[in-house]
Amino acid sequence: MSYDPQNPFAKILRGELPCFKLFEDDKTLAFMDIMPQSDGHALIIPKEPAVTLLDLSEESAVAMARLTRRVAIAAQKALGCAGIQVMQLNGPIAGQTVPHIHFHVIPRYERAELTLHAAKLGDMEKIKALGEKIAAAL
Amino acid sequence: MSYDPQNPFAKILRGELPCFKLFEDDKTLAFMDIMPQSDGHALIIPKEPAVTLLDLSEESAVAMARLTRRVAIAAQKALGCAGIQVMQLNGPIAGQTVPHIHFHVIPRYERAELTLHAAKLGDMEKIKALGEKIAAAL
Repeated sequence: MSYDPQNPFAKILRGELPCFKLFEDDKTLAFMDIMPQSDGHALIIPKEPAVTLLDLSEESAVAMARLTRRVAIAAQKALGCAGIQVMQLNGPIAGQTVPHIHFHVIPRYERAELTLHAAKLGDMEKIKALGEKIAAAL
Repeated sequence: MSYDPQNPFAKILRGELPCFKLFEDDKTLAFMDIMPQSDGHALIIPKEPAVTLLDLSEESAVAMARLTRRVAIAAQKALGCAGIQVMQLNGPIAGQTVPHIHFHVIPRYERAELTLHAAKLGDMEKIKALGEKIAAAL
């Protein structure tokens, strides 16, 4: 699959689009999903340009796994969620909407269904506040 | 969360339950899900006893990421699926049914919806044959 450098996550990596950042290092970036499926929905992306897990280097996959684990632990600690769903969608048929590989960390709460994937902008103030809580627990 | 050594995946790791094995090394095991949500549905587990990603060591999380990537690549190569869904559920509220951490690798095909998670035993001969194809591509 060819990589489109104009996709929104590539723009976030270049600083051309803003994000509510949780963590960044030389290989990865974690930030808040602005179309959250639940409170605290976060995304982990590699800096390597890759569309899916299948064309990502093993090195970046490992870096993503480390950060995904850390963000999941921080989200649980910060938000007290009852469970966490980790999701990584490859290809439009699997539900991938942004063609830059990403892991979803989706907190789950008692008596709260998920909202639809990539469907609706959330409340930015609320997302920002949740992100600050998670970042503080990282 | 306390770990129950009588869970089915612990039994598979000890050889007390059978599985259609794809790959095994000192840290991880990959095998076919016998309640598949689509053709070629595979599972990746660590040998470390851990219920969720939150209580798994970073070392095992990294080993799982390496193998999950490899199995996804092999499944695409072997089965020619149009996409792949990677899923990792933590806690019953998130849909986790076996209390030993696992990654799902779920191939997606055009014009084929997923069947329900952990709902129904599949056709064992078919699962075995799909597993042999994926293992051959690993």
